[in-house]
Amino acid sequence: MSKPEVQANEAQPKPRTRRILTRDDWIDAAIGLLVSKSIDAVRVEALAKDLGITIGSFYHHFKDRNELLAGVLGKWHESTTAQVVRAYGDLTLEQAMHDILSLPFHGETARRAAMVEFAIRAWARRDEMARQAVREVDEQRLAYYAGALQQAGFSKAEAANKAFLVYSFQISQALLWEVYDDKARKRLLGFTKKLLLAPDA
Amino acid sequence: MSKPEVQANEAQPKPRTRRILTRDDWIDAAIGLLVSKSIDAVRVEALAKDLGITIGSFYHHFKDRNELLAGVLGKWHESTTAQVVRAYGDLTLEQAMHDILSLPFHGETARRAAMVEFAIRAWARRDEMARQAVREVDEQRLAYYAGALQQAGFSKAEAANKAFLVYSFQISQALLWEVYDDKARKRLLGFTKKLLLAPDA
Repeated sequence: MSKPEVQANEAQPKPRTRRILTRDDWIDAAIGLLVSKSIDAVRVEALAKDLGITIGSFYHHFKDRNELLAGVLGKWHESTTAQVVRAYGDLTLEQAMHDILSLPFHGETARRAAMVEFAIRAWARRDEMARQAVREVDEQRLAYYAGALQQAGFSKAEAANKAFLVYSFQISQALLWEVYDDKARKRLLGFTKKLLLAPDA
Repeated sequence: MSKPEVQANEAQPKPRTRRILTRDDWIDAAIGLLVSKSIDAVRVEALAKDLGITIGSFYHHFKDRNELLAGVLGKWHESTTAQVVRAYGDLTLEQAMHDILSLPFHGETARRAAMVEFAIRAWARRDEMARQAVREVDEQRLAYYAGALQQAGFSKAEAANKAFLVYSFQISQALLWEVYDDKARKRLLGFTKKLLLAPDA
């Protein structure tokens, strides 16, 4: 990790060039361009222009564009993992499932996370590094849900099957966010939770 | 609909320029570029170059790029509707659900359809016309599944809830196609069918 740049001359006429830019700022800017345009639009020159800083500053933090892209995937993976772990923790299965199934409902934050995730999946269709990251995240989430369900008493096979449906619910709610209003979403959440948490038939 | 162009001089040295290009050929080429790159890459000049034909020929079929894009969405909507209707028809609910839930499994064709759909959803994040088309398709499929479930005896609310889970299953199987092998897919299909077709609790 490189040190952040400090350009602290208070009398400068261009305030944007005086920002302290961290590695994370570059990653966030890259995610912004990825979401609003596509991976092809994530170019060092475009980012530097958006951030009002020289291209040289970029190389202070990253060896090349590829390292920046790896940083984007790393950040996404990390926040994704944290999200899943936070959702379970010491909760009962019912609380945990409620939280996990409700993830796509948490307003603007969830909306934004869904857009980032969608953009990364689109990128993964054409890029091996992104494909690998998406696959790891998918497998990690599914294993996590299956583990929680198994711990709560479902058989291994039952837990794996239900984990897929939990994840399907999440993915589809995020994808179909426009189709349902809040009332319908709550109804679907209640129904799905009840269906998946019922004891083995 | 304009007439297809015929350039039938057998002695021509450039065979690609002698193809009979229909409106549908342009739409298919546009879908190809949409999937392999993104909507931004779908430009008349690039398509003409790929097809080995002059730009002028494009305007034989379409007023402008926007009409081509509308054609892409129209073709997708049509094939999507046909797919859904074919899946139900005169079948029993169990057969129909089996077919609908199996849609993401039909090898290369399903894989290609999923890629087209994904690319259109990505486009819909940034474009009103595409957004509208996606929303209509989503609502149409959900209404169709709900109708089939209701016809088979489930209450209206139950049918709407289950229709969402059927659609979630489809969407997620298409999205997570890499995560599961054939055996796991079959297991998930059997489990989900049984879970969703069980009578109201």
